[in-house]
Amino acid sequence: MAVFKLYGDAQSGNCYKVQLLCSLLHLDYQWQAVNILAGDTRVASFLEKNPNGKIPLLELSDGRTLSESNAIINYLAYGSALLPAEPFALAKVQQWQFFEQYSHEPYIAVARFIAKYLGLPAERRSEYDAKQKGGHKALAVMQQQLQCTPFIAGDNLTTADISLFAYTHVADEGGFSLEHYPAIDAWLDRIKALPDFIPLGS
Amino acid sequence: MAVFKLYGDAQSGNCYKVQLLCSLLHLDYQWQAVNILAGDTRVASFLEKNPNGKIPLLELSDGRTLSESNAIINYLAYGSALLPAEPFALAKVQQWQFFEQYSHEPYIAVARFIAKYLGLPAERRSEYDAKQKGGHKALAVMQQQLQCTPFIAGDNLTTADISLFAYTHVADEGGFSLEHYPAIDAWLDRIKALPDFIPLGS
Ligand SMILES: N[C@@H](CCC(=O)N[C@@H](CS)C(=O)NCC(=O)O)C(=O)O
Ligand SMILES: N[C@@H](CCC(=O)N[C@@H](CS)C(=O)NCC(=O)O)C(=O)O
Repeated sequence: MAVFKLYGDAQSGNCYKVQLLCSLLHLDYQWQAVNILAGDTRVASFLEKNPNGKIPLLELSDGRTLSESNAIINYLAYGSALLPAEPFALAKVQQWQFFEQYSHEPYIAVARFIAKYLGLPAERRSEYDAKQKGGHKALAVMQQQLQCTPFIAGDNLTTADISLFAYTHVADEGGFSLEHYPAIDAWLDRIKALPDFIPLGS
Repeated sequence: MAVFKLYGDAQSGNCYKVQLLCSLLHLDYQWQAVNILAGDTRVASFLEKNPNGKIPLLELSDGRTLSESNAIINYLAYGSALLPAEPFALAKVQQWQFFEQYSHEPYIAVARFIAKYLGLPAERRSEYDAKQKGGHKALAVMQQQLQCTPFIAGDNLTTADISLFAYTHVADEGGFSLEHYPAIDAWLDRIKALPDFIPLGS
């Protein structure tokens, strides 16, 4: 029996982080599809669960809720090999996750959204163009780290890899070619080869 | 003797998070002033320590470095009363910190930067105006939580309060009046009254 419910959209990279984590850790859950474009995140019943009106959202069987993709995957990975217990290693995981939310996702995921979902309309072209510089800066920071270590926070796979994999592996859909980032490419392949890996859109 | 070094700018809210945390926990550290406008974060010696070129940056006595304000304060607060050990409570702290980085800081801190540091130049007026809606949305989410609990993640002060205090208490400098958010106002006062509280700019 599923012990929690996940509200999400199968096309969303932020929701995919949780789906991928659950697959890797064999966690069972009940999926509740949410259609953002249809307004599902703005109805009172959803806002009661997440006043910030965003997915993914985790709901435990006792009704408690947790939002923010990275907080959710760290919670679900607690005690597993994907989340180090040693304080500095744990801090490094969080460093990369805050990097993802502040310096990566707002460029790469938003450029992808404008191109893939909105079809790159003329009135958002300059915003799309402006996202390219920040996205490449984030990719360069990742490339530098992945030249030194096989995973983003060091020698082992952690939730930080899942956080950054979500939008990096579809960065091309936002106009970001990865050809100048060979270490990122190799890292993407390493993750895709994990047992129980599932693709975005599952 | 200081066991770590903190690279920062005394006017930056992100750096202030770490300064405030250290004061509350009586942690001793060596301060290294960094002048962003003079280009200090873009020189090779700094980029070697943080390839993302941002402050705050923590450097341990053995040379290891940690970036991202929220990762730094969680690391420094590890094992203290400011960071819960129970997994769900810990996840809630992180939820609010990711909310801060994604839905709060990019609006409130950036609007403040444009107004206070750049003097609201005509060419950034539309960007400034566009930040108001997102900032007020974040404040409304906080207000709703703080009507229910004295601190943002529940009954106790945590690092999530420090993360959100940093830019909320100077939100007026970004054009955000707090008059419609009485629960936020009361929470700000609660934090300002903490023993060993220090103001921004210390
Ligand atoms: N910081 C959040 C971002 C979540 C997010 O932006 N979700 C999008 C879908 S990918 C959403 O729900 N958008 C609806 C909205 O903002 O109204 C996280 O990591 O979970
Ligand atoms: N997500 C980062 C943001 C840090 C940040 O934006 N720092 C600013 C000063 S408040 C900075 O170093 N800016 C210089 C730059 O980006 O070039 C954190 O929480 O530490």
